[in-house]
Amino acid sequence: MTRPTLSPTSRSTPRRHPERARTDRSELDGVLDAGLICHLGLIMDGAPVVLPTAYGRDGDTIYVHGSSGARSLLAARPEIDACVTVSLFDGIVYARAAFSHSINYRSAVIHGKARIVTDPEQKVRGLAVVTEHLAPGSWDYTRQPSKKELAATNVLAMDLAEAAVKVRDAGPGCEEEDEAANGIWAGVLPVTYGWGSPVTADFVDANVDVPAHVSQRQWQ
Amino acid sequence: MTRPTLSPTSRSTPRRHPERARTDRSELDGVLDAGLICHLGLIMDGAPVVLPTAYGRDGDTIYVHGSSGARSLLAARPEIDACVTVSLFDGIVYARAAFSHSINYRSAVIHGKARIVTDPEQKVRGLAVVTEHLAPGSWDYTRQPSKKELAATNVLAMDLAEAAVKVRDAGPGCEEEDEAANGIWAGVLPVTYGWGSPVTADFVDANVDVPAHVSQRQWQ
Repeated sequence: MTRPTLSPTSRSTPRRHPERARTDRSELDGVLDAGLICHLGLIMDGAPVVLPTAYGRDGDTIYVHGSSGARSLLAARPEIDACVTVSLFDGIVYARAAFSHSINYRSAVIHGKARIVTDPEQKVRGLAVVTEHLAPGSWDYTRQPSKKELAATNVLAMDLAEAAVKVRDAGPGCEEEDEAANGIWAGVLPVTYGWGSPVTADFVDANVDVPAHVSQRQWQ
Repeated sequence: MTRPTLSPTSRSTPRRHPERARTDRSELDGVLDAGLICHLGLIMDGAPVVLPTAYGRDGDTIYVHGSSGARSLLAARPEIDACVTVSLFDGIVYARAAFSHSINYRSAVIHGKARIVTDPEQKVRGLAVVTEHLAPGSWDYTRQPSKKELAATNVLAMDLAEAAVKVRDAGPGCEEEDEAANGIWAGVLPVTYGWGSPVTADFVDANVDVPAHVSQRQWQ
């Protein structure tokens, strides 16, 4: 299936470092699929609030595990302005000038309206998507939510229609005046991510094996 | 020096999982010192925007590398409402119920007014703090900013006066109805972070050693 390109709007068009912008829809999916948590931005009492939370992507929808703050905002309105940002931190860029230090990263800043998912089937679907993003293989392995648990959970949904995707994946720049600074090192220090050894909960019998979806989980 | 406790305000008092809240000021410093990037929340054209960026802490001030968006907002006003969130993702919490899955994390959500640093001395100080947070040892090792570079940089400052710090660092809960599910594993899959091997920039002579502040950098 051909993915549409991201149609840039004024606020989704980077003003700084436009060369880092990516407009291919697959780049947005790539960032969202590689991230683990998102930062949800809302306006509460006239001020911005940024909350880290879990999310998952389902086609052209991003589901976000909702805060009680979002719920209270959405009690009065069907939808609210929101921003969901997923960023991956790939390395520190050391330059010969302090000014030219930078970060290698991938980020997606999604603008739009967030709504609370009220349809029961879509809510279960949204929770499954968020759970599977956080812990692939867990949804089918574990007990699915009871009605009471579903009622105690908020799931927000946003369309993936307006997003700014940026990628920096390069070495440092070198200003002309620093070219002669031959003794000064410059380069990139990459970040490495991985999973440690699973720690079994106290209440689990010693003879229960760690399931493969946990023990063999690969860093995305 | 005794650190004051964080005085909780309505918006800095977590409503969900209040048991995860930390009110000791040293916990705020701990999260900020351990993080690498922050997520800056602003209101632009009436909607929230969340941007990943670099930051550094200097006593009771957090300095944030400013976006051009923040600059245009602050062109008209001395300060704007902002939220700076630093979150550290420590592990995935696998439970016996999908609903009880969670994340081990540390987060600091700082509310307040952001101002652009205009005083030249404070601006250099703020840049040094941000650079040293991102790349400890780099400020003294590299060329410091020229007047032109300083003019091309925005540094925002916020007071560390109102912040919500939350920590989850525990195994999964187990609902009563799941206690008998003896064959189902539950536990925590920790995330591991580290630095990879430094990648030297093309323009650096082969005989230049990677300096110790890079080659021996420890994960914070």
